[in-house]
Amino acid sequence: LCAPPAEVPLFYRGTFVHSTPQTPLLILEDALLGVNTHGKVFLCGVYLNSSLCGFLPCSEFFMPGMVDTHIHAPQYSYAGTALDLPLLQWLNKYTFPVEARFEDLKFAQQIYNQVVKRTLRNGTTTACYFATIHTDASLLLGQIANDLGQRALVGKVCMDRNDSAKTYKETSQESQEETLRFIKELLEKKYPRVSPVVTPRFALYCTEPLLGQLGAIAKYNNIHIQSHIGETVDRMNVVKELFPDSKSYTDVYNKHNLLTDKTVMAHGCYLSDEELTLFRQTGASLAHCPNSNISLCSGLLDVRNVLKHKVKIGLGTDVAGGYSASMLDAVRRALETSKVLTIQNPGYKTLTFEEVFRLATLGGSQALSLDKQTGNFEVGKDFDALRVNVAAPGGPIDLIKDEHPKVGIWMLIIQIVNSDDRNIVEVFVAGKKVVPFTEKTQE
Amino acid sequence: LCAPPAEVPLFYRGTFVHSTPQTPLLILEDALLGVNTHGKVFLCGVYLNSSLCGFLPCSEFFMPGMVDTHIHAPQYSYAGTALDLPLLQWLNKYTFPVEARFEDLKFAQQIYNQVVKRTLRNGTTTACYFATIHTDASLLLGQIANDLGQRALVGKVCMDRNDSAKTYKETSQESQEETLRFIKELLEKKYPRVSPVVTPRFALYCTEPLLGQLGAIAKYNNIHIQSHIGETVDRMNVVKELFPDSKSYTDVYNKHNLLTDKTVMAHGCYLSDEELTLFRQTGASLAHCPNSNISLCSGLLDVRNVLKHKVKIGLGTDVAGGYSASMLDAVRRALETSKVLTIQNPGYKTLTFEEVFRLATLGGSQALSLDKQTGNFEVGKDFDALRVNVAAPGGPIDLIKDEHPKVGIWMLIIQIVNSDDRNIVEVFVAGKKVVPFTEKTQE
Ligand SMILES: [Zn+2]
Ligand SMILES: [Zn+2]
Repeated sequence: LCAPPAEVPLFYRGTFVHSTPQTPLLILEDALLGVNTHGKVFLCGVYLNSSLCGFLPCSEFFMPGMVDTHIHAPQYSYAGTALDLPLLQWLNKYTFPVEARFEDLKFAQQIYNQVVKRTLRNGTTTACYFATIHTDASLLLGQIANDLGQRALVGKVCMDRNDSAKTYKETSQESQEETLRFIKELLEKKYPRVSPVVTPRFALYCTEPLLGQLGAIAKYNNIHIQSHIGETVDRMNVVKELFPDSKSYTDVYNKHNLLTDKTVMAHGCYLSDEELTLFRQTGASLAHCPNSNISLCSGLLDVRNVLKHKVKIGLGTDVAGGYSASMLDAVRRALETSKVLTIQNPGYKTLTFEEVFRLATLGGSQALSLDKQTGNFEVGKDFDALRVNVAAPGGPIDLIKDEHPKVGIWMLIIQIVNSDDRNIVEVFVAGKKVVPFTEKTQE
Repeated sequence: LCAPPAEVPLFYRGTFVHSTPQTPLLILEDALLGVNTHGKVFLCGVYLNSSLCGFLPCSEFFMPGMVDTHIHAPQYSYAGTALDLPLLQWLNKYTFPVEARFEDLKFAQQIYNQVVKRTLRNGTTTACYFATIHTDASLLLGQIANDLGQRALVGKVCMDRNDSAKTYKETSQESQEETLRFIKELLEKKYPRVSPVVTPRFALYCTEPLLGQLGAIAKYNNIHIQSHIGETVDRMNVVKELFPDSKSYTDVYNKHNLLTDKTVMAHGCYLSDEELTLFRQTGASLAHCPNSNISLCSGLLDVRNVLKHKVKIGLGTDVAGGYSASMLDAVRRALETSKVLTIQNPGYKTLTFEEVFRLATLGGSQALSLDKQTGNFEVGKDFDALRVNVAAPGGPIDLIKDEHPKVGIWMLIIQIVNSDDRNIVEVFVAGKKVVPFTEKTQE
């Protein structure tokens, strides 16, 4: 145990559920957790004097805040609509025209405010955002995340090769210069939990010189990198044509220093075992976005194989390729994807609920290289947590009255499968309660 | 148009969205719908004097109540838990012990009250229920559905061959006699919208003599029939062993007069084209339960092929094989199943949202042979409807402020994909508002 700080710490008592590298789901019944004045966990363990049991209602427990490793903030404006086209047409018809509107800061303010609030309510304490090509709107997203208390990586999108969009693209020079300005200005704000992330949209929409420059910028500033990889079969083929010198999609990024231990790549449905090995060697990670992969008919990621290759992996909503901005939805869809793989191959080792719970929390923090700060209740990390009430009034779950609480604890946790934001009654980031919103943050 | 009745009719004005046999999704903007004092639609059409437009907020519309063609009411007590086993083990470990508890009418009262209220809140105006083997508890389910205002088919489960459960089974004679008592007593109640349905659990759990008796009972009383068919590959094989004289699973039921135009069979993932043809010929229908099929790793129903064979088909939640008691969830899972089939076979003709919307409403009413009473807003049918508010306060959907309402109407409807019970602000069955619950029905 770390020593508690000199000032007044806070104690939370109840059931705590979290993951460790060794155990996908650890349940601490009647435990005590101490948070110091810096918002860090300094104590977490089972409370010995169990005669005092009953402090929290039996339908409640704490779990770590969830980590959305891949979400397009501007696309929240049309989440749930327009899922009738395959990926490349979908981008041209819906995505680029909408993203172009974020040059308008007033529009950006509205949508970014909505998406940060919504994801916080949904229990996303950490989000890794794609914004748009617009530097000022991207800075605004960083400010909104900071003001509302969400831990975030924010990326100004880079794309100097977009033949299909006339207005929504940049020159290579603009992309490079604006990325530098974005990083500089965001870092100057000194937001405690919001950082910039170098964001080439994906190989197909970037020239090789730009990819090289972005790799150099990330290396020089030692900052995060995010992009897309291996999302659809089609895209794999186009990349092959555009980059004939590269051995693989992964190799394209690696050649330009874009695979580091601070890199997260979305999807990866169609990576070869060699490419996964390259991920492990470089420390790069994958953001599994099952809702998006199914909604756009892209593919089914074999998470078991990714885990076998010891590649870091978390879950992402990929709004708006994924229609839901809820990480609980991502949990459900990840389980489903694994079950579909089992239907196709009855010998497949289906992901367990416990494993998917870990992907949504600790796995995500590892994928974003933020596992020193968040992901579980380990002593020394920030207290990023959700207070879940399975029986929240007006919520989606009915409890059976005569179930014995202790017998029911396992059942309650599994009920995450049916829960939604109504069951997430409080959200904490770095010890500070960010949901319910205060009057100041309420519109 | 039918003539309006002599007493005072009610008029609803706004946007109405429903399906017809010709058009999967028909949008009537600024329409007027009249409901007579018997709760029937006597008028539905576009309101000509469009200068009065603006009566309803633009984020609202009416849609038909949804039809859950397959749900196990007792299993609601553990929905969302215990989805870690394949079907047959799952039944033995979780289902039968729980169902056995419904001998206790007090327990039955609690759970059946919960499930009817929950499904009503979720927009299920018609449900086709499996109860348990207990006649009195099954009668209680009928009474609760009637009292809370839900249209329902209720089945006392029959199973005289259950080697794995010591206590949860009946003799053939008990099963037959109790089914007759159940039908008689339920019909004597003269509930206007609750009817009995003959319910052999499935071929595997019934002896041939019992199947024959149940077929005869259904025929003699001209009542509905429900069971399970073709859910998993394993089960198909066991049925083949147990009924060596039958050509197919479907043939087992058909031989015993259990395939009629009032029969609904759950699942059907593994039916041959010949079996589907037999379904069409007999007028029997399928209940597609995608959540359950995925959750239990059973299979992926090719709905397109079912439609091609002109077999009637609706959607079912199959609680608790399916973890969700929401038909909106069934809509999402049906779309996903179709998209997974598309990932496997890129030439596959994916179900559209419009088609799945029809499955959840009109399709379900056809599958239950209740399409004269419900399923859409056709004149002469009962007014079974949901008032949906996409922008319900505290709900899961954020609207963009500057969207023009008319431009947005299509978008709003598609937003069903992200909506939940909070967006279903009122529910009507046969013209009567059943949700929000009145004080009398509130616990
Ligand atoms: Zn993406
Ligand atoms: Zn069933």
